[in-house]
Amino acid sequence: MERIGVGLLGYGTVGSGVGKLLRESAGEIQLATGKDVYLRRVCEVAGFTHSDLGSALITSSFDDIVSDPQIQIVVELIGGIHPALEFQTAALNAGKSVVTANKQLISQHGHELFEAAEVTHTHLRFEASAVGAVPVIKVLRESLAAAQVQRIFGIVNGTTNYVLSAMTDTGAAYDDVVRQAQALGFAEADPTEDVGGKDAAAKMAILSSIAFHSRVTLADVQHEGITAVTATDMAHARSFGYVIKLLGVAKLIDGRMNVRVYPAFLPKDHPLAGVKGAYNAVFLESESFDKIMLFGPGAGSVPTASAVVGDIISIVNTAPGGFVRNCTCYKDVAFYPSERVESSFYLRLQVEDKPGVLGKITAIFGEEGVSIRSVVQTGRSDSAELVMVLHPAPEAAVMGSLARVGGLAEVQGSPSFIRVEGEDGV
Amino acid sequence: MERIGVGLLGYGTVGSGVGKLLRESAGEIQLATGKDVYLRRVCEVAGFTHSDLGSALITSSFDDIVSDPQIQIVVELIGGIHPALEFQTAALNAGKSVVTANKQLISQHGHELFEAAEVTHTHLRFEASAVGAVPVIKVLRESLAAAQVQRIFGIVNGTTNYVLSAMTDTGAAYDDVVRQAQALGFAEADPTEDVGGKDAAAKMAILSSIAFHSRVTLADVQHEGITAVTATDMAHARSFGYVIKLLGVAKLIDGRMNVRVYPAFLPKDHPLAGVKGAYNAVFLESESFDKIMLFGPGAGSVPTASAVVGDIISIVNTAPGGFVRNCTCYKDVAFYPSERVESSFYLRLQVEDKPGVLGKITAIFGEEGVSIRSVVQTGRSDSAELVMVLHPAPEAAVMGSLARVGGLAEVQGSPSFIRVEGEDGV
Repeated sequence: MERIGVGLLGYGTVGSGVGKLLRESAGEIQLATGKDVYLRRVCEVAGFTHSDLGSALITSSFDDIVSDPQIQIVVELIGGIHPALEFQTAALNAGKSVVTANKQLISQHGHELFEAAEVTHTHLRFEASAVGAVPVIKVLRESLAAAQVQRIFGIVNGTTNYVLSAMTDTGAAYDDVVRQAQALGFAEADPTEDVGGKDAAAKMAILSSIAFHSRVTLADVQHEGITAVTATDMAHARSFGYVIKLLGVAKLIDGRMNVRVYPAFLPKDHPLAGVKGAYNAVFLESESFDKIMLFGPGAGSVPTASAVVGDIISIVNTAPGGFVRNCTCYKDVAFYPSERVESSFYLRLQVEDKPGVLGKITAIFGEEGVSIRSVVQTGRSDSAELVMVLHPAPEAAVMGSLARVGGLAEVQGSPSFIRVEGEDGV
Repeated sequence: MERIGVGLLGYGTVGSGVGKLLRESAGEIQLATGKDVYLRRVCEVAGFTHSDLGSALITSSFDDIVSDPQIQIVVELIGGIHPALEFQTAALNAGKSVVTANKQLISQHGHELFEAAEVTHTHLRFEASAVGAVPVIKVLRESLAAAQVQRIFGIVNGTTNYVLSAMTDTGAAYDDVVRQAQALGFAEADPTEDVGGKDAAAKMAILSSIAFHSRVTLADVQHEGITAVTATDMAHARSFGYVIKLLGVAKLIDGRMNVRVYPAFLPKDHPLAGVKGAYNAVFLESESFDKIMLFGPGAGSVPTASAVVGDIISIVNTAPGGFVRNCTCYKDVAFYPSERVESSFYLRLQVEDKPGVLGKITAIFGEEGVSIRSVVQTGRSDSAELVMVLHPAPEAAVMGSLARVGGLAEVQGSPSFIRVEGEDGV
């Protein structure tokens, strides 16, 4: 039986999970591929030991991986841009296929890596880089290759979903929930990439590139995080019949792409509203298949390892000499400016509690062509809180109105806003 | 560029959808496969015309398909067992790969077809046979090939989900809703296969065969339909905080398989409770990936056509000479007897409204070792309705109790029962 050697870069929780799965599911993999797929070598920084790895398996030199003719597939799990980019490039140049979970690298340097793979006719697979164990990339690339996907819409970051779910359930403040999430291992010591939306943006860049067949990089994805979402916003969301979720939204508008990440109000009976804790869920929509939703663990070492092994099997099952299509960005679609996207908004402002203030504010929205759906004003001693939900309007008009409203002498601080999504059913 | 001819058997709504998708997405398919995939011939019974097909494309003789060396892939969409079985076998024997949506054939004669495909090293693909456009078969076969799936749990029939959703939303009776579903095209003129559970059972046979790597045929799947579900049961479900769904449940218990279809109470905040109308949703569970859920249109000509084209692309992308794995049933796992499965039950009985009846009934359950969780008795003139929810107990004990209770002189008619699922979260 033909043997396929796997070289592993990085033996942390995901890497050791991959090693374990290759070992424990060797029989299943053999039956699924007709080949003996085995862990040939692990490259880790010097000085580490793992009781489940023989010392002969371990090397601290990447050269031992790239120069080993018995290694056909290199799995990169060290993360970050450097030296992951150089390692992956070297592996592809050496004629080895690459599997990775590195969303930041793929969303920023995918193009160079795809070109390297093209030259040596090797595979580059990255299912684990978006939505963990949920095979949304495979479904988009393969099952839906002939479908014209119009919209991708979902929860693609587990940390922020955990935080927002906990805020919804307990009414606790953002900072307290983040600290608790860190203690429980649902948030990193430095959670900036998650809570700031960059992690979700990288995933949306990858998913929308595949869905729309046109390159979307991290820099193309406008993203807002959840750091400004307060317990007060949560309470208002509840009283209006919504929950707050961090959403990735990628859509074609008039044939152009708009890809963004932002927190949003979702109706509480929306399917995504029920996605709790660290789970992820992504809707894919198209005329040809209506809508499909995939749900599952967004991260975690075992699910991620499962996705990596799925990619290894997929590569092994594509016979050498078969057709290799790594990059599916064969179109060059323009971007649709976010300012022109129509959205509905929730707004919250502190105003002086005196006659005529509401009139001034509504007049500004009227002049900018923005229509107000509902207003709730709650008075306190000398200040009132004004909560509004707007009808859909171009973002430029809403932002223009907010700038003018924020400049009124009677308005205290900056108005805060959260978009409203999902009122069309999905 | 290499050309791949497709021969189509059956040009109804799905068949014409496949033709349309091959034509309109020719560019996407070429880019996804590197080949020109085109509709070469359509076989239909004599006397039909389609404005979108040139007459040269149409034949009434299957021989014209099977003997055409330009046809590499045959798509069978005529349904039923005969002559679909003979046609598929002939195509595979002739060295052509086969794509089908025929769940009854695959769930009853899959083994013979897989053997024929094995001999000629051809592919047999059937994504559209289960859960329409949702690529659950591909995910199970490929992405999760190394995962040890423990449970499949979901809504796999659109007609019954439409009927139950409408009964839930309107309080209408079963017969009225079925008539309405027929008028709207959500139920067949003869809905027996759907409402009786056989359609769902065939899909569960296919899905569990792949998930557990052991053959499960239609005959192995005990199935109950929804014909006995009444508006009264719906009302009780609502008052207890549940909805009623027709579920497919396949699980490994002590290493053995139990695969069934039955209507069940689901907590109203369960993710499957929110799956409305003709949509389907399937949970896959395993230690290695936790749980994944796939949701989408369960049927419909366009989504089904999309799944068929996905299979065609998948076959084209597996280079000739590559590894072919059609049948994944390489184990021989025994079945776990349903009588020993522990389930929770909802029961409804009509009893004479006189002292001591409830005591007699609860005594019987006690003797059989079945524990009662809640009882609601509602008196009417001379008869009372007794609604009970039981704690989980082996089915044999519950059925034994029910037989004894049904034999009591004070009990009118047969007790009716519906299982309770999903209280463990999913």
